[in-house]
Amino acid sequence: MKQQQEVVAAMRGLVGDTDVVDTAADMQAYVADWWGRNAGVAACVVFPRSTEAVSKVLAWCNEHDVSVFPQGGNTSVCGGAIPDQQGCSIVLNLLRMNRIRDINPRDNAMTVDGGCVLGVIHEAALSVERIFPLSLGAEGSCQIGGNLSTNAGGTNVLRYGNTRDLVLGVEVVLPDGTIWNGLRTLRKNNSGYDMKHLFMGAEGTLGVITGASLKLFPKPRTVVTALLGLATVEAAVDEGLRLQGAFPGTLDGLEIISRSEMEIVLAHAHGTRDPLAQPANWYVLVELATPQANDDTLSEKLMTVLTPSLESGAIEDAIVASSEKQRQDIWKIRHAVTECNRHEGMGLSHDIAVPIHRIPDFIAQAEATVKREFPIARQVVVGHMGDGNLHYITMIPHDVWAGIEDKPAYARRVAHALYDIAASMGGTFSAEHGIGSAHVAEMSKYKDPVELAMMRQVKGLFDPKGIMNPGRVLPAA
Amino acid sequence: MKQQQEVVAAMRGLVGDTDVVDTAADMQAYVADWWGRNAGVAACVVFPRSTEAVSKVLAWCNEHDVSVFPQGGNTSVCGGAIPDQQGCSIVLNLLRMNRIRDINPRDNAMTVDGGCVLGVIHEAALSVERIFPLSLGAEGSCQIGGNLSTNAGGTNVLRYGNTRDLVLGVEVVLPDGTIWNGLRTLRKNNSGYDMKHLFMGAEGTLGVITGASLKLFPKPRTVVTALLGLATVEAAVDEGLRLQGAFPGTLDGLEIISRSEMEIVLAHAHGTRDPLAQPANWYVLVELATPQANDDTLSEKLMTVLTPSLESGAIEDAIVASSEKQRQDIWKIRHAVTECNRHEGMGLSHDIAVPIHRIPDFIAQAEATVKREFPIARQVVVGHMGDGNLHYITMIPHDVWAGIEDKPAYARRVAHALYDIAASMGGTFSAEHGIGSAHVAEMSKYKDPVELAMMRQVKGLFDPKGIMNPGRVLPAA
Repeated sequence: MKQQQEVVAAMRGLVGDTDVVDTAADMQAYVADWWGRNAGVAACVVFPRSTEAVSKVLAWCNEHDVSVFPQGGNTSVCGGAIPDQQGCSIVLNLLRMNRIRDINPRDNAMTVDGGCVLGVIHEAALSVERIFPLSLGAEGSCQIGGNLSTNAGGTNVLRYGNTRDLVLGVEVVLPDGTIWNGLRTLRKNNSGYDMKHLFMGAEGTLGVITGASLKLFPKPRTVVTALLGLATVEAAVDEGLRLQGAFPGTLDGLEIISRSEMEIVLAHAHGTRDPLAQPANWYVLVELATPQANDDTLSEKLMTVLTPSLESGAIEDAIVASSEKQRQDIWKIRHAVTECNRHEGMGLSHDIAVPIHRIPDFIAQAEATVKREFPIARQVVVGHMGDGNLHYITMIPHDVWAGIEDKPAYARRVAHALYDIAASMGGTFSAEHGIGSAHVAEMSKYKDPVELAMMRQVKGLFDPKGIMNPGRVLPAA
Repeated sequence: MKQQQEVVAAMRGLVGDTDVVDTAADMQAYVADWWGRNAGVAACVVFPRSTEAVSKVLAWCNEHDVSVFPQGGNTSVCGGAIPDQQGCSIVLNLLRMNRIRDINPRDNAMTVDGGCVLGVIHEAALSVERIFPLSLGAEGSCQIGGNLSTNAGGTNVLRYGNTRDLVLGVEVVLPDGTIWNGLRTLRKNNSGYDMKHLFMGAEGTLGVITGASLKLFPKPRTVVTALLGLATVEAAVDEGLRLQGAFPGTLDGLEIISRSEMEIVLAHAHGTRDPLAQPANWYVLVELATPQANDDTLSEKLMTVLTPSLESGAIEDAIVASSEKQRQDIWKIRHAVTECNRHEGMGLSHDIAVPIHRIPDFIAQAEATVKREFPIARQVVVGHMGDGNLHYITMIPHDVWAGIEDKPAYARRVAHALYDIAASMGGTFSAEHGIGSAHVAEMSKYKDPVELAMMRQVKGLFDPKGIMNPGRVLPAA
């Protein structure tokens, strides 16, 4: 194995002194994750400024068996973006590759460097009266290369799809340094295997995504946002499905929030109040959008669809935002969830998905399991209901959590109890957050062995020396 | 190499006598393509009735180095579904695997055998008030396994995406007989590499798709169809882009038809007439749809968007269908294209795509090239404009074509002249029809060498003995 000094010297020789840092202080932000939960060790952090620089770095690392941990905005919630403990590896951070290479509103397409921050891409799209619809909490710091590598989700998936659905082409540097320029802005291209989908969702284990051609969409000009209060999760799912049936191509968001989550947000987020007059057991946040300005028919149509359920009592109460301020107030509740949960206690969060019609079953079984086996925890639910994706949180008071001896073992027991329920319904233990290092063990336990074997073969094909993000995604054979 | 008798006997032993045919008469429909242009030879045609049967057949063929030509409805236009000339191979036709395994309108999902005919899937979806939106000319006979394997396109791609975008999960039998059950109805699942996308578009060269979980969508209840007449292709593209901007999620179809194509249809299709009062150089077929019944706002909105262009003269004339009969008459023109072109002459058809804003450039350059280099041909254009996908046809009178000595060489010269233009614009030579055996040479000429090398590696990984659909998609190294 190479010594740290050798690695640092080689990197400086390849990309220049200013694009390599190797002191503990300079590396701090890149070797620890943003939660401060996990940290690793690296010989240095390299900030390449071009695809060619990435190529040189990977070729050298491949030749010298030095591990490479690709990193975007370092916002992974699964320990997917930081180095391991081995120490003589490099972190390859793309933040200095941040050009908008091309933007063409007539093609509804944009080509960008892998290190572009998602928020910058949003602004560039808006500057030509378009949107790039990928929307998630970390958008101010996450990078598009990381979004693609993790096939990021978020609140707009229902209408626009997962990240992979928003991509027309990619540029990838393979582990041996080979550059594949797969950047295209074509909507159709049936000429051979679709290689780009292999790199999206591979979390940097097959190569580094250094550029992307993205789909743009018309900018919404009329947005209608509503919050529904319902007595049961069955009623919430029923209403959600009715809305999906009534507004395909218009329904932007369909989020579910449990009363427990609402109470946590109201307790901890300044200036929030329950938008509904009476507390409800379940809340559904609905958002419709069209590109027509001042499209009054949209809220009329929404009311037409909601009225029968309001009259029958299936929906207990509802508010349709009548101003941008009211709309912001509703979304503020949804966006405050993560921060407020952190104040409330230790929230063990599980990123599960099940077929949509199984959501009520899942919640009933999960609630019963938590009550029976983990009575110190309280059920808190927030999720992208339209995608069948629930962030199912078992909330434990800070002081109770402090008294638990083997915390990782407890957390794993909770997780596996919930994942078992999801699995029994054809569900998944990782809907949108990915695997990283946190869920590698679950890959062995829950993944179909044939599928896992294919993944291992593909990994061996593209990265025979195993230098790319080792220990992530795939469990050791 | 095995003798034909050995292969037939083995197949009978594996799947039973009634599911194997080996006489020339019985095999005729499966060894020749539906155009009658190309034919191959096979030891027998096998009709497995289960995934397990497919597994047994592939395992045996892999062990004994017998080539397998997977086949669905045999509607490939690229020679992708028939055997080669080698003779001792088998055709594996899935028509007896035709069950709807599950249909769940609440999940907007359906799971089917790979041999289900697309039209049957359409009917099953409609029976639960849903649609499966893949729509193409061969839908009465093509099978869903073939649609997935070729990532089929069609007239609904603009709104619903290519076939791969309509798929939630697949079941695949790998070349060695291993069964991968990747059937799921989840909307989100970020647990490792997305293997399903590798098999979609691989045209059966990596395994056989024996089952699929498909996305369903709300049934449109209000449909508005219009035909616009325009003087130039620039004006046609401009109007198309305006419509795309105004009706995302509502615009189902956006087809372009040249005057030359309209004249051919009017000459050969019984009972058609030009829907517009005056001939136009270019026609754009527009279709909007929403799930609301009797949604009068839809045609009002369309008129609002079209009116400025009608007033300025950018659109010369337009008709909005005011009855289902009028709507059918407009679509009849579009659907009659293939048949009428066959009557008109030898139409060399090219399935190109370019970035949408380059369509006028492409047509201008192509027209100039055809006039200069292939003066016996006339330009005929029909295409999925919203996808940048043009079926660019060089039409040659039958008697002139009869006089051409080396027809394949002439056709290739025309094709490469047009593909060169598309390639110079970042376009492709096969937008939706795939590669099959017809376009293998173009893979060598036009495909990025790095991408081609990756495809070859993947092929070697999954099918090391090269038994699956040999000679298709990938050129010999």
